[in-house]
Amino acid sequence: MNSFVLHGDICFCPTPKRLLAIEDGYVVVRDGVTELCCGALPDTAKELPLHDYRSKLVFPGMVDLHVHAPQYAFRGLGADMELLEWLRHYAFPEEAKYGDLRYADKAYSMFTGALKNSATTRAVIFGSLHHDATKLLMDKMEDSGVVSYVGKVNMDRNSPDNLCETTEESYRSAERIIRETAGKYRNTKPILTPRFVPSCTDELLNRLGRLAEKEDVPVQSHLSENPEEIKWVARLCPDSRFYGEVYDKYGLFGSSTPTVMAHCVFSGDEEIALMKERGVYIAHCPASNMNVGSGIAPISRYMREGLSVGLGSDIAGGQSESIFTAMVEAMQLSRLYRRHIDGESTPLTFAQTLYMATKGGGQFFGKAGSFERGYEFDAIVIDDSTLPHPQPLTLAQRAERAVWLSGDKTGLIAKYVRGNRIL
Amino acid sequence: MNSFVLHGDICFCPTPKRLLAIEDGYVVVRDGVTELCCGALPDTAKELPLHDYRSKLVFPGMVDLHVHAPQYAFRGLGADMELLEWLRHYAFPEEAKYGDLRYADKAYSMFTGALKNSATTRAVIFGSLHHDATKLLMDKMEDSGVVSYVGKVNMDRNSPDNLCETTEESYRSAERIIRETAGKYRNTKPILTPRFVPSCTDELLNRLGRLAEKEDVPVQSHLSENPEEIKWVARLCPDSRFYGEVYDKYGLFGSSTPTVMAHCVFSGDEEIALMKERGVYIAHCPASNMNVGSGIAPISRYMREGLSVGLGSDIAGGQSESIFTAMVEAMQLSRLYRRHIDGESTPLTFAQTLYMATKGGGQFFGKAGSFERGYEFDAIVIDDSTLPHPQPLTLAQRAERAVWLSGDKTGLIAKYVRGNRIL
Repeated sequence: MNSFVLHGDICFCPTPKRLLAIEDGYVVVRDGVTELCCGALPDTAKELPLHDYRSKLVFPGMVDLHVHAPQYAFRGLGADMELLEWLRHYAFPEEAKYGDLRYADKAYSMFTGALKNSATTRAVIFGSLHHDATKLLMDKMEDSGVVSYVGKVNMDRNSPDNLCETTEESYRSAERIIRETAGKYRNTKPILTPRFVPSCTDELLNRLGRLAEKEDVPVQSHLSENPEEIKWVARLCPDSRFYGEVYDKYGLFGSSTPTVMAHCVFSGDEEIALMKERGVYIAHCPASNMNVGSGIAPISRYMREGLSVGLGSDIAGGQSESIFTAMVEAMQLSRLYRRHIDGESTPLTFAQTLYMATKGGGQFFGKAGSFERGYEFDAIVIDDSTLPHPQPLTLAQRAERAVWLSGDKTGLIAKYVRGNRIL
Repeated sequence: MNSFVLHGDICFCPTPKRLLAIEDGYVVVRDGVTELCCGALPDTAKELPLHDYRSKLVFPGMVDLHVHAPQYAFRGLGADMELLEWLRHYAFPEEAKYGDLRYADKAYSMFTGALKNSATTRAVIFGSLHHDATKLLMDKMEDSGVVSYVGKVNMDRNSPDNLCETTEESYRSAERIIRETAGKYRNTKPILTPRFVPSCTDELLNRLGRLAEKEDVPVQSHLSENPEEIKWVARLCPDSRFYGEVYDKYGLFGSSTPTVMAHCVFSGDEEIALMKERGVYIAHCPASNMNVGSGIAPISRYMREGLSVGLGSDIAGGQSESIFTAMVEAMQLSRLYRRHIDGESTPLTFAQTLYMATKGGGQFFGKAGSFERGYEFDAIVIDDSTLPHPQPLTLAQRAERAVWLSGDKTGLIAKYVRGNRIL
């Protein structure tokens, strides 16, 4: 079923330094996995069905490492506050509505529909703290065909009354979701999701850390996004030398299971060193970092030092689910970083950014985000003929232009996840 | 012909502090000019034809104060260099091609087509230095229905051999275009366009300044975009205390005719004071300021101090012709400005930004960019029903969301310029 040859103008980044652009190329897919990507159809693959996208652009599917499903409903609204105020005024009141399953059904249908129709093939998702709504979100994500980790949010302090659990409730709900969804889905898995240190007690973090290890479930949270938040964490956790150490103390920082931390705008040297040591994934969310006024993250330093970096839409801190848009913003912010923060830093290249959007984030899921042998075949096909140009372009130029000009919807004509065409 | 009533959900900013949102409102247009904008259809207008856009968003047309027509062909490519290097490697070689009228015809058709199909109703445009190609561009702009100033670029030093004129040639070409197009168009006018100080000799600037005054033609150029550029100007013009003073010395800084200066990222106090005194329009081009690594302009200071500010796409420093996109980027950059440059500065509000995109830039054209009485009726109509939302929104929220989520093409269903529907 999932064995075929795809033909098109193929672009991917096996490393952050290398954009492979294979005009009129072929990807041989067997059982949903890439066997070979090459410039000529090999004899051994001639019996396979041909999916012919001649003259169309083919990229690996985009990976969104950080997105809040219940915030999709208010994306594009309320970008007039900084993080903590924004959470109180916009994010928390909206998330509280997901206690109503009818509202959750309506709003999550919009979110999962948008994700399905986007260029995103894999996503690491925050739900809300609501047990049933999160399971509903998991059902809908499974229906979408997009591969995802979905987290029921844990928060047991410093939260509004209508969006706060007891430590016991919070822990039990996380534990039950793991049990209740075990083996249920093909593409959807739970992920432990302490919202961020300010909204989780030490006891809750401690129990979640042990749960992660016991059940071998990955972890996501937020880290060092905003100066006020960082000061708050320092007051709440005087025993920790830096924000990330709080998560680490409780086994929620990559020591037992893969972990993704969103933002890392203001991580200091020690935090960066620990992220590297623990293999923590950084979800860079440039739109959000602008919209809620957080600041510019030192992404090109992280890339140079070999940390694992992917991109996140961070709906609704970010306004768009498009990872193409996030790529453009990441390149733009790296240029401003050089101008205003560190004149020695190097702006991100297109190859680095495409790498982050695909394999950089994809590795959180295993072998995803590349057309190398043995990688699960996630791909998007873009018709860029709608972008007129008065003269010939190379394939690498077409790829760059499609990202800069398209957003992720324009021209998207096909999408494959694990060898299945879902769009 | 151009008298009618338009009905819809109307949003505009008569001042930077005030967003007027009139649900189910009416604009009475007589002879292409707004007579009245109100919440109920007045008896005196009941005999007029009704253009019914019930439940659709109606904004004033967007004004693009700075865009390079011959750079449209390579938008989305080559955003990997800073300004001066970028000019040498990308912009100048591309512009040199417009000596070939066949190429110009093909490429300018794409540019004017894109502008026609965008939300932009007025634009201040750089052509290339080529006389005939610039006249061709003016013909095509006239055909598009968009109101514009179009400038033949002047450059007689520090330019590549295939993109440089003698002082005499450059001056004569500018003078002839004014004469040759006098009375020729309804919506298209010439504008004097010394590229920027580094590429214009003192003699050329001096003669252009006198020409501006004699022929009463407005002026556009670039100002204080990049630190290297500013140092270069200081070396070239040791007698001037600051960059803007060079233009001013030659009557090209608003002293005789309206002048728009693009960027003003690094203008110092004296330059700012002189811009205010002379009524110079600032074209803020946030995408370009990111893409070629210029930096973040202090726009909220300019607004607070009462300078005239509009938005520019700055194709191809910017990648998109969308002024909605420029609005979003302007808001985003103002947030980063507060974080990284001046903690006391205030982020731009949605109203300030919509004002800049409409009336702020529109005033360069006279009475344009607002639905106040006596303003030429430029409008765009947006169908935002394609942006799903699980709950009711106010009109102000719908307006904000349409800008943040749409770019300028999505949902654009009608466009009026001077009372004529052109789309």
